[in-house]
Amino acid sequence: MSETRVDGRSNDQLRPITIERGWSAQAEGSALISFGGTKVLCTASFTNGVPRWMAGKGKGWVTAEYSMLPRSTNERMQRESIKGKVGGRTHEISRLIGRSLRAAVDMKALGENTIVIDCDVLQADGGTRTAAITGAFVALVDAIEWGREKKFIGQKAQAIVDSIQAVSVGIIDGTPMLDLAYTEDVRAETDMNVVMTGRGLFIEVQGTAEGAPFDREELNALLELGTVGNAELARIQAEVLEQ
Amino acid sequence: MSETRVDGRSNDQLRPITIERGWSAQAEGSALISFGGTKVLCTASFTNGVPRWMAGKGKGWVTAEYSMLPRSTNERMQRESIKGKVGGRTHEISRLIGRSLRAAVDMKALGENTIVIDCDVLQADGGTRTAAITGAFVALVDAIEWGREKKFIGQKAQAIVDSIQAVSVGIIDGTPMLDLAYTEDVRAETDMNVVMTGRGLFIEVQGTAEGAPFDREELNALLELGTVGNAELARIQAEVLEQ
Amino acid sequence: MSETRVDGRSNDQLRPITIERGWSAQAEGSALISFGGTKVLCTASFTNGVPRWMAGKGKGWVTAEYSMLPRSTNERMQRESIKGKVGGRTHEISRLIGRSLRAAVDMKALGENTIVIDCDVLQADGGTRTAAITGAFVALVDAIEWGREKKFIGQKAQAIVDSIQAVSVGIIDGTPMLDLAYTEDVRAETDMNVVMTGRGLFIEVQGTAEGAPFDREELNALLELGTVGNAELARIQAEVLEQ
Amino acid sequence: MSETRVDGRSNDQLRPITIERGWSAQAEGSALISFGGTKVLCTASFTNGVPRWMAGKGKGWVTAEYSMLPRSTNERMQRESIKGKVGGRTHEISRLIGRSLRAAVDMKALGENTIVIDCDVLQADGGTRTAAITGAFVALVDAIEWGREKKFIGQKAQAIVDSIQAVSVGIIDGTPMLDLAYTEDVRAETDMNVVMTGRGLFIEVQGTAEGAPFDREELNALLELGTVGNAELARIQAEVLEQ
Amino acid sequence: MSETRVDGRSNDQLRPITIERGWSAQAEGSALISFGGTKVLCTASFTNGVPRWMAGKGKGWVTAEYSMLPRSTNERMQRESIKGKVGGRTHEISRLIGRSLRAAVDMKALGENTIVIDCDVLQADGGTRTAAITGAFVALVDAIEWGREKKFIGQKAQAIVDSIQAVSVGIIDGTPMLDLAYTEDVRAETDMNVVMTGRGLFIEVQGTAEGAPFDREELNALLELGTVGNAELARIQAEVLEQ
Amino acid sequence: MSETRVDGRSNDQLRPITIERGWSAQAEGSALISFGGTKVLCTASFTNGVPRWMAGKGKGWVTAEYSMLPRSTNERMQRESIKGKVGGRTHEISRLIGRSLRAAVDMKALGENTIVIDCDVLQADGGTRTAAITGAFVALVDAIEWGREKKFIGQKAQAIVDSIQAVSVGIIDGTPMLDLAYTEDVRAETDMNVVMTGRGLFIEVQGTAEGAPFDREELNALLELGTVGNAELARIQAEVLEQ
Repeated sequence: MSETRVDGRSNDQLRPITIERGWSAQAEGSALISFGGTKVLCTASFTNGVPRWMAGKGKGWVTAEYSMLPRSTNERMQRESIKGKVGGRTHEISRLIGRSLRAAVDMKALGENTIVIDCDVLQADGGTRTAAITGAFVALVDAIEWGREKKFIGQKAQAIVDSIQAVSVGIIDGTPMLDLAYTEDVRAETDMNVVMTGRGLFIEVQGTAEGAPFDREELNALLELGTVGNAELARIQAEVLEQ
Repeated sequence: MSETRVDGRSNDQLRPITIERGWSAQAEGSALISFGGTKVLCTASFTNGVPRWMAGKGKGWVTAEYSMLPRSTNERMQRESIKGKVGGRTHEISRLIGRSLRAAVDMKALGENTIVIDCDVLQADGGTRTAAITGAFVALVDAIEWGREKKFIGQKAQAIVDSIQAVSVGIIDGTPMLDLAYTEDVRAETDMNVVMTGRGLFIEVQGTAEGAPFDREELNALLELGTVGNAELARIQAEVLEQ
Repeated sequence: MSETRVDGRSNDQLRPITIERGWSAQAEGSALISFGGTKVLCTASFTNGVPRWMAGKGKGWVTAEYSMLPRSTNERMQRESIKGKVGGRTHEISRLIGRSLRAAVDMKALGENTIVIDCDVLQADGGTRTAAITGAFVALVDAIEWGREKKFIGQKAQAIVDSIQAVSVGIIDGTPMLDLAYTEDVRAETDMNVVMTGRGLFIEVQGTAEGAPFDREELNALLELGTVGNAELARIQAEVLEQ
Repeated sequence: MSETRVDGRSNDQLRPITIERGWSAQAEGSALISFGGTKVLCTASFTNGVPRWMAGKGKGWVTAEYSMLPRSTNERMQRESIKGKVGGRTHEISRLIGRSLRAAVDMKALGENTIVIDCDVLQADGGTRTAAITGAFVALVDAIEWGREKKFIGQKAQAIVDSIQAVSVGIIDGTPMLDLAYTEDVRAETDMNVVMTGRGLFIEVQGTAEGAPFDREELNALLELGTVGNAELARIQAEVLEQ
Repeated sequence: MSETRVDGRSNDQLRPITIERGWSAQAEGSALISFGGTKVLCTASFTNGVPRWMAGKGKGWVTAEYSMLPRSTNERMQRESIKGKVGGRTHEISRLIGRSLRAAVDMKALGENTIVIDCDVLQADGGTRTAAITGAFVALVDAIEWGREKKFIGQKAQAIVDSIQAVSVGIIDGTPMLDLAYTEDVRAETDMNVVMTGRGLFIEVQGTAEGAPFDREELNALLELGTVGNAELARIQAEVLEQ
Repeated sequence: MSETRVDGRSNDQLRPITIERGWSAQAEGSALISFGGTKVLCTASFTNGVPRWMAGKGKGWVTAEYSMLPRSTNERMQRESIKGKVGGRTHEISRLIGRSLRAAVDMKALGENTIVIDCDVLQADGGTRTAAITGAFVALVDAIEWGREKKFIGQKAQAIVDSIQAVSVGIIDGTPMLDLAYTEDVRAETDMNVVMTGRGLFIEVQGTAEGAPFDREELNALLELGTVGNAELARIQAEVLEQ
């Protein structure tokens, strides 16, 4: 893994990560996260109460929506609102983010409260879903803290059970690499998104052979790399949340 | 007009205006504009060619789309992509921005090129449509410059005929005020959006009695105030574009 | 303003206006209004009660929907029901009509009742939105009278606070003209819709530079002309309502 | 069949029928038809050429769209454009009208031209689909005549092969009746729409047991009645078309 | 009627009919029915309770939905879910099936229960709607039996008042024929669907002139043939239900 | 892995698998596959030519659509065609099936031909997506063979590069199990779908922590089990295809 990448990174190195916690003056929690050129605005909206079909069970709900601004990409895409429908990729990523964040939360401790996470990609350069998950966790923590301050959540409730991070990994020209930028992603034979907890357990593993099928050894190498990257992301999140 | 407003401004004073020109690394032109707490990301996408129904006339086309992030507002709004349709207000504002910007452009000089302006409200605190128009003009200028550099537009063509600005004005408790923040907008009896050119001519005047109907004198006072505000915005735009 | 127009009118003259009050045997109030070749069927539907989100405030609600028959125009348009979505122009005009009519009504006096105004353009020859507003007011008055007779509205309640009229004005070849027919509208440099009350106050002013921007003097001339036209429309409405 | 109906008609008598031929100043053919309180505006839009999938076969195309104004009925219905979809009943009737009118036309003689018939119900009091078909035929004839005058159709081509009429029949309290008004339609045990040609042949027969199933004898009685009613409608159409 | 058809049947003969009762392990009632190459999976879903607008009247509700798998036909059709709307033909057939089955049921005896019948065409070779109705009746009977066993329906209630069958008939080259296969249907001048009860009464008669209009004598011949075919279908249903 | 499951299987045992190759008389390739109570009808539609945006590259295209019949499940689901939109889960699975099958195909060898695979779930009892992929491969092979016979594909072209299978695995009460039935799936802490080639390479790995996060060791156990199951499925496919 000594080969140098287009932006000078080593193969097991993340792009520069920045997290502007509390970017939004409106949302109960928010973070503007960058993974290199990828910028995602994550907001967490806290509502006291749950959808009717969940009421009376003493449990909360966390859900997420992902979207890209039409000119977040190199070529302008048509808005899904104009098309009148949400595309498959958008749906898939929204569901992934929601599932991932729910793994961070003890729904009993959250109580009958709902948190909606919006992840809007302002600029896209690969890894938008993993940046979204990583930033959304920060917004989520702050929204839960807001709920505690407002007394919607019990003062001693430990609603957050672990931190959540995500990173993409892939195999390019036979070499496993961490945190692919857009130009790398396009060239990858295999592409994998790894969502993990701060304690190093897996929440979601999604590996896809884009070019050639992959064998068990390659799969193992990708999982190693994802573990390394997520550990670093967990460290950065913790730092931001300590401020 | 000596009364002081909630944020300490005088009645004929704009909120702090900032314009981050070239915010986006992807778009041909872009600006992140703030009118106080209102923040709008404006991108201009340049495409060589025009829609088929316009082809062969030697003229260009400029259009715009406006949208609000779901949590740009104090309470989260449902996404229009999820609803499956674009609301009346969104349509109305998109059309207003498009009409206003077309007034800035000599379509013959633009040649058979299309520019799509996206105005996405990241944070809303009143005056989102006027901020959008004012920021979009900056993005438009840069996209046209990009087209000239790429030789899609003639080197001597004067595609921009004048600058375009917009500001809201309103009457609150009988007093005309400039550039209403959200809490002011809600209280206004009359609300007016004034779109003007840098030379001080009108492009669009939209005045609405929200509470009581207004007389000719009040209308005149609002037009004066709009003229003052737009002159100041034109100055700021010019400053930003000179850099 | 001595120049003669294509149909022989002077510049400050309305087209022939007719209002068939009570055209519909089904609606609580109705009017078939013509502004020259423009014919709009306005019906007002009265419902006792208000939408749930308004209940318990002792106030009523008035809203409007505008639509054009597919062959009301010179070339057949596709139906919005077939397209599966309502276009921006339709939305915009529906909202304008609703806002304008609400300015005629004291919602407290109306009580918890809802009136929906439908304005369906049977034939279009310019000024459909202004004809719609003017005709809708007549339908509204009759629907409110119906509500009073049925005892849904208090017998002494003055639900109507003023009459509402609307007319278009525009500048053609530098000359301001009243109540533009379609062929005039297409040629207008500036186009303005003026909604006023019977007492001569403004409800809505929407002026747009279609060709060249307009100056303050032109704006003033248009406002004068709109005032003249609306006064005449108010007289015709009053005549029809006295029968 | 000696029993008297609510409006004094005998059981084999049509309601008063009126046809205002050429009602629309815009359409190539039009008719405002009344069957008693039912009023339908039928317009025929002629276009030279056919949809791409039909081109080059030397044949024309006739299609129809049916719609009801929201307050054509006693209770206001939601617009299908607002719902975002066309309902089953609307689809079904549009298809019936189109099929019926195509039976009147020799597509070879029509040549590569398209006629779209719009039937918009302005007021509904039973039998809207049968009134629509009967009125649409008049509009169709005039649109074809227009096409001949404009030389889009051969001067000697006999594009119309026969006239088309339609009427509803039903069984109420065991008695077969012709041309049901809304209050009768609601009470009918069996309801049938009969579309015929001027020569007395059947185009479409749609009989439905709303209450009790019907036997062959009742079916025969309804067919007789439909034949009587359609013959009278054919006479009225011919009269209107001779003027 | 001695002429032989493409598959060797006589003109008054049905195709081979098979009914697999209870095909689905999930639904309360189900049948996989074949009319020759046409295969329709009919499931009946029983729900205790009725839609809110029907509640408190002591009556049940039966409704149906028809759909074709995209490759049930010779050329693949686009899915209606992908198009985002249900087509006119689908709507029309769903409504026909629902109306037909409701004629089999005493809604008072059904009590406040809802049965939704789904008819999904797995393979289409003409007569899909008539096969659907015939198979759906079997599924309906079993769903009602299920409701009785679960005590949602009174033990002595006779919810089924008669059996329901349907068959298509048509005139091909001047000859009336029973139960048209797809290749026959395409060639038919007149096409009729006849829905009847086991006792031989009519529920629905829908005859359409696809080619030439038809006279009364032809109509009579088709009704005879439909009566013959439905009697045979009733016999087969009874046999299947006795097992 | 000696513990016995609800249906008596061992933890590394598949449910009974059946594949009815050529079920459909209409499609170019088809298979009705069962994984226990899960039944999926897979059809492959072959079209000569590719979408316009792919033309001229000498390559083919394979895509897939997944859908569930409304009563394939224990409780009836609303149809997506009625809702007017395709849900996120449906989109996600359609995309997965398409990606998986494309991995089986050499697009150059396929030439400019398009194959659309439809996977319609007739009955659902867990593992519908994995059954769909496994059955779809059989349909795909036959559609390609059809294309070869029709000379749309070169006679020597090896369009199929490997077989494709898929199976679900999961951890229940801490024990890894193969091919989960619905009642098992609901209880699983971790759920994984493994798509592989006949040669034992990975195409897609999607593991999700539904309950508790999983560690690397558990992930390894699941991958082993998936490999075992897919090898068995490959054997069954081969057997079916040899007939």
